[in-house]
Amino acid sequence: MTHQVKLDWKEKMYFEADSPGAMVPIDAAEEFGGEGRGARPKALMLTSLAGCSGIDIASLLKKMRAEVDDFSISVAAELTEEHPKYYHSVKVSYDFYGSDMKKDKIQKAVDLSVDKYCGVMEMFRKFADIEIEVNYHEKG
Amino acid sequence: MTHQVKLDWKEKMYFEADSPGAMVPIDAAEEFGGEGRGARPKALMLTSLAGCSGIDIASLLKKMRAEVDDFSISVAAELTEEHPKYYHSVKVSYDFYGSDMKKDKIQKAVDLSVDKYCGVMEMFRKFADIEIEVNYHEKG
Repeated sequence: MTHQVKLDWKEKMYFEADSPGAMVPIDAAEEFGGEGRGARPKALMLTSLAGCSGIDIASLLKKMRAEVDDFSISVAAELTEEHPKYYHSVKVSYDFYGSDMKKDKIQKAVDLSVDKYCGVMEMFRKFADIEIEVNYHEKG
Repeated sequence: MTHQVKLDWKEKMYFEADSPGAMVPIDAAEEFGGEGRGARPKALMLTSLAGCSGIDIASLLKKMRAEVDDFSISVAAELTEEHPKYYHSVKVSYDFYGSDMKKDKIQKAVDLSVDKYCGVMEMFRKFADIEIEVNYHEKG
């Protein structure tokens, strides 16, 4: 299976990316000659990682009947000092919100995404150390 | 240096990612239970790759005084058959449009981005075979 995207230069450091499902604006930060009018390309890798795992989790929690009120995924990644700079260390934090959460099933959903389903996680494993954290925020 | 993104679940397979520079909507395709209202997370990796190199090229062409009328970057990537599915083979095509283009300098800009500056390209090299193609479209 082939995936394709096309990126069109518009002006200065500003681009528009024709990706499946959404037009994504791309721009450099102001300190690098851009005007900050779009996503920074490198950080989009982290959005890709969080999104890939997020869709797994949303789908698994529904199948397992372990729905929560809310959840979020935060990714913090460290860049190397030398060029070309890449993410050598990545921490992915899963935060679940609800009452009477089925923590065993939720943990299993996270494990399945991280170890088995999330292709973006698999790509990240090839260049970064990955740390996973799961936090439960119970309603009182 | 640390980069951070946060992805918030909204409903079904729909998420909003708070990334530097832009809010990126994320959704699964309809055949996977989503509603196609946002970017597909895996393909965002390809947008990231094209954007990273695009910003290098825009910056280098300006510095080298080798501006073109227009350019675009297309990425086509093949997924593995087995889960977790990742991109094992990636073709990046650079298309430049203009008249009297300074092809030597343009080629040098592409080489510098691919080999030296683009951190996303460096990450892709860890899991994929990469093919680079440069096309010039001269105005008559």
